[in-house]
This record gives sequence, C-alpha cells and structure tokens, in this order.
Amino acid sequence: MGYLRKNIEAMAGYVPGEQPAEGDRAVKLNTNENPYPPSPRVMEALRVPADRLRRYPDPLANKVRDIVAGMFGLRRENVLCGNGSDELLTLIVRACVGEGEAIAYPTPTYSLYPVLAAVQGARVLEAPTREDFSLPVEELERARARLMLLCNPNAPTGVFTPVEAIGRIAARFAGLVVVDEAYVDFASDHAMRLAAERPNVLVFRTLSKSYSLAGLRFGYAVGPPELIAGLEKVKDSYNVDAVSIALAAAALQDQPHMRANVERIRAERDRLSARLADLGFGVTPSQANFILARAPGGGGRRWYEGLKARGILVRWWNLPRLADKLRITVGTPEENDALLAAVQELSNR
Amino acid sequence: MGYLRKNIEAMAGYVPGEQPAEGDRAVKLNTNENPYPPSPRVMEALRVPADRLRRYPDPLANKVRDIVAGMFGLRRENVLCGNGSDELLTLIVRACVGEGEAIAYPTPTYSLYPVLAAVQGARVLEAPTREDFSLPVEELERARARLMLLCNPNAPTGVFTPVEAIGRIAARFAGLVVVDEAYVDFASDHAMRLAAERPNVLVFRTLSKSYSLAGLRFGYAVGPPELIAGLEKVKDSYNVDAVSIALAAAALQDQPHMRANVERIRAERDRLSARLADLGFGVTPSQANFILARAPGGGGRRWYEGLKARGILVRWWNLPRLADKLRITVGTPEENDALLAAVQELSNR
Repeated sequence: MGYLRKNIEAMAGYVPGEQPAEGDRAVKLNTNENPYPPSPRVMEALRVPADRLRRYPDPLANKVRDIVAGMFGLRRENVLCGNGSDELLTLIVRACVGEGEAIAYPTPTYSLYPVLAAVQGARVLEAPTREDFSLPVEELERARARLMLLCNPNAPTGVFTPVEAIGRIAARFAGLVVVDEAYVDFASDHAMRLAAERPNVLVFRTLSKSYSLAGLRFGYAVGPPELIAGLEKVKDSYNVDAVSIALAAAALQDQPHMRANVERIRAERDRLSARLADLGFGVTPSQANFILARAPGGGGRRWYEGLKARGILVRWWNLPRLADKLRITVGTPEENDALLAAVQELSNR
Repeated sequence: MGYLRKNIEAMAGYVPGEQPAEGDRAVKLNTNENPYPPSPRVMEALRVPADRLRRYPDPLANKVRDIVAGMFGLRRENVLCGNGSDELLTLIVRACVGEGEAIAYPTPTYSLYPVLAAVQGARVLEAPTREDFSLPVEELERARARLMLLCNPNAPTGVFTPVEAIGRIAARFAGLVVVDEAYVDFASDHAMRLAAERPNVLVFRTLSKSYSLAGLRFGYAVGPPELIAGLEKVKDSYNVDAVSIALAAAALQDQPHMRANVERIRAERDRLSARLADLGFGVTPSQANFILARAPGGGGRRWYEGLKARGILVRWWNLPRLADKLRITVGTPEENDALLAAVQELSNR
C-alpha cells in the first residue's frame, strides 16, 4: 500500500478486554468497570434539550472545569477535559514527544502506553518494577525521556506508590511526569498536590471507574496552566460532547454516591483478597478496584479458561511476569461469591 | 519551559466560532449549525439504561458501522466511527503523515487543516483556488504530499467540485485523498463511489450539520478496508461513547427527518442568495448550508460588526480573499428575514 506511515503499518493495535453482548449473563470481572450504577443525578441529566444537541458544545467544557477546580482548590486554567483519560494520554504524547524521542514507564503497566508511543513513532524506555512490583525509582529518575507515564495505583498490579516517592522522581527527572490516577479513588492518597505545585507534573483522572461511567468517556487533566494550554492546542476543537458535559457535571456533583460505592468496593477488595489467599493464590496488595493474583500451581491460562467456561470473565495476559496470574475486577458481593465458588470448584479438580 | 514540543509551543490553536451563552437571544448564523432540531427518535434514544453508561462501549460502534454500510451498499469493514469528523481528520493525519512530510489542500478551506499539520509537525502545500474559488486541479494533481484534504462542498466558500473532477485528481495524485463531506447532504452529488472503488480515497461525514447534532460529536469515515484498519489502530480504544452510539444510530435511521430539513435549508439558501444579490452582495454559488458573500463597498468587518450590534452573528475572517466577505449560515426563514432586515438597515445608512 504505502499510504500509511511505516510505524502504523508495522504496529499492532491496542486490544481491549472482551465485551460480552448486552444481555449476556457472564459475570464480568475483566475490564475494571464499577459494578454499581452511576448516580441517579446522572440519569436525570440525560434529559438534555434538543437545542443543546443541535448546537456545538462549549469547546472547553468550562462548567466541568470549574467543578474540578473547586474540588481541589485550583483554577479553571489548571484543568482540561478529555474524551476519556485515554484521550488525555494521546494528547500529552502528541504535545510532548516528537518522532524518535522517548517515553519512559515502569513495567508491567497499562498496555496502552507502548501503543501510544508506536503511533507517534516514539521510542520507549521500559523500566521493570522490582519483584514486589514496586517502582524502580533510581532508573526512572535517570531516564533520558521527554515524558514519564506513572499509573498510580498501577495497572494491572494494583500497587500504590506513595505520593512523596513520585514527588522525588518528578524533582529529579528532566522531563514531564504524568500521574495516571484512573484508579486513585480506591486508594489512600492522591497526587493533586504535585500537580498544583510542580512545573512538570500533570495528574489525569477518569470517570470510568469510581463514577461508574466507562460508557461515557470522560476524563480530566490537572496541572500547571502552561501545560494545560499546550494540551488545549492539540485537542480537537470540540473533544467533549454536550451530553458528556451534562452527565460528567452531574456525576462530579454527587460525591457521596461515588464515595459510598468506593467504600463498598474497598471492603469487597479486602474480603476477596483474603479469601483468594486462603485458596492458595499469591495476592498482590491492591489499592485499586481489581486484584492481581498468582494462581496456585502456576499457569494463569488454565484458570482463565476454567473460569470462562463457568461464565466468569477475568483478564489474563500471556506476558512475562503476568502469565501465571489473573487480574480480577472487584464486583458486587454476589459476583465475587460466584468467582470464589468457581475457584473452589476448580481447586478441587 | 521546554516540556512541550517546539512546534506546539510555536503554534496558535484553532479558533472556533463564538458561542453565545445558552439563553442568549442572538440570531446565530456563524457556525453552520442546523436551525432545526434533530429527529424525535434521537431524543427518545437519550433514555439509555444505567448499565450502558456503567460499562465500556463497543470499541468499534458496530451498530452504526452496519447502518452506514447499509446506506451505501458497503461492508462494516469499509466504515470507521469517530468523535466528530474532526477526530477522523486528526486520525488520518497521524496515520498517514510523518514529521516533516506534507499535506496538500486548496485555499481558502477549513481552517482546521493547517492546525492539524502544525500539531503533527508536518508541512503544508497550499494551492490557491482560482478567482471563482474552483479547484486548481493541475497543481493539486502534481502536489508532492502524503495526504490531500478536499472539503467538498468547500468551506467557507460553499463551492462544490464535481465528483468526476475529484476522481481524476485522485487517479493522478500519488498520496491519499480525503474528501471531507461535512456539508455534502446539502449538495447535488457525493463521492461515496470513489471511496468504494479507489484504493486512495476516504470520504468523511459528520452528523453535525444535516442531522442537527453538532452537540453530539459524531462522524464516520468510509473507504478501503486497509485504510480503515489503519485508522482503527490509531484511534483511542473507546473513541465514541455509548450515548453517542445510540443517538447516532437513531439519527441515521430517520433519513426522512434529515432530508426534510435539508430541503427546507436548500430552499432558504436559494432565497437568501437571491435577496443578498439584490442588496448588492457578491454571492458565491453555494451547495452547502451557508453562503459566502462579498459585502457591498468592500470591508466585511464593518458589516460583521454592524450585524453583531443588531444581535446577528455571522462569520468574518481578516484573511486574504475573505476580509471583504461574510460567511452566513442559512437559518430558519425568520432568522434569515432578521438578517435581511438588518442588512437593509445597514445599507441605508
């Protein structure tokens, strides 16, 4: 052909987790969705007037920017809204990393990062985490890269790096640091104080997990106004639609609903972690809404397939350090019980 | 700073047309929105269940792909859905044009194209249209560029290039041709037969104009499966949200609603063109939902400001070949009458 760039021809695309058809009764613990519905206020906000669909939306979604700024004691200029935090990741790579320049991140981590580098024609500097999946701090500090992507809590491990440690890395690293906080509402701390204080730190959030809005595609970036203005130049003029703006505003304005669901999920995360350990799994301590667990007897595939045959979807990767493990999204108590019963049954065979 | 790429630091962002606050009573003829509401089926489709917001959407929006494929006698593999056709334009630039490579387009045209080139660090080959704004065919055919962007009908001129002429350009041009058909439902023909037959043609459409859904952000690309697969690798995993999928499907399935609105707008376009000519404007024949008109006495700014003072927003650019003209979106008969009355009043001063 030759119409596409060589790096695009050569690369494989990102592979999302499998999505059963609507109405399929699988217990779906494979894509870190929230098992509880979004706020009733979100459902009410769906009634947008026809005129708002007919006209272009606010290019900057200032209504949501102001809500987010208020949550963290910042200004509108510190916030940019995106079509999911995936879009924000795409934007920062395009804004910050030229062809042939480098992006650094620890491994394993969110499998989208190398895909974004491949699309941009950028290089990757992959720094393996230690045996307990904690960050290779010195290696990251020294990395000669334009951009560092730190998912915290990390996916797919659930490991949370203390914010002070990230602050030290950002102080020594020469480039820009993005703290991808997709799962941070399930953790004990967050890095907004770094985004407010440091010239080279951006924090990305999403409404997909803690706010139960994976179907909506809404994320936001927080950081220094100069960097936010740079992302603004790169984004499409109207990157967030009028319905998303209305629903995101409603979701963010109902913090008690989000918090209550997060507490339920945390309690189940602890219960599920303990029960899996009882059943012989090697459980990585998680501060996210999922658990990475080494299956007894090694070989995650057998467990993945056995669970799937019993109507339970979890995530498994045929990759170094992950092939002997499963990543299990924390579901409702009933869903988790179904998982545990199936694990018990497979253990006894 | 130095955290952003030099091309990003240096560039200016795209400037969207001004959007008055909701409830503002301005007659808004400046951003080519449709003056009529979207299909009632779209409003019904807004009632999506909570579970669809909670879960990730279909990454490929296959429901909509199948509807579009059916409309043009093609296959799902010929179609990709995007977050507005602006996103599709971003994707094709990223998929097709490396840093320092070239994008060709006639001028004047959609002012987003040079912005996309600047973000990518690409060069532009700008080929001025002839005095009547028709395409500089030979210059485009010979352009040494990876990608050609042809907006047809063109913005901001409204001039429609016959599909056969575009076919001849595509047959001779060495790179990829995108026919940006944002306004094509208001025209007399379209280029889907080129997208179906030629290996180097993609057609982009949007629901923003003819379907009255500028607030929704939904577009689609049609072309050879190999090129569609390339765009698929570059796009974000879940680029189109669950609500947009539901609403776009509903809109596309109500062709009579769209067609009826298009007919009303075409009739008004012809009436408004004739009346403006009577009032001394030099009207460029338009096949879009807007009219580019040279103001009597030269100097578009005075007219733009005079109309704005009377509560009527139109678009004016301080650019070569455009500074003496206004671009006026075709509104409802009442809105167009308000414009004509204000023009008459300004003429008499």
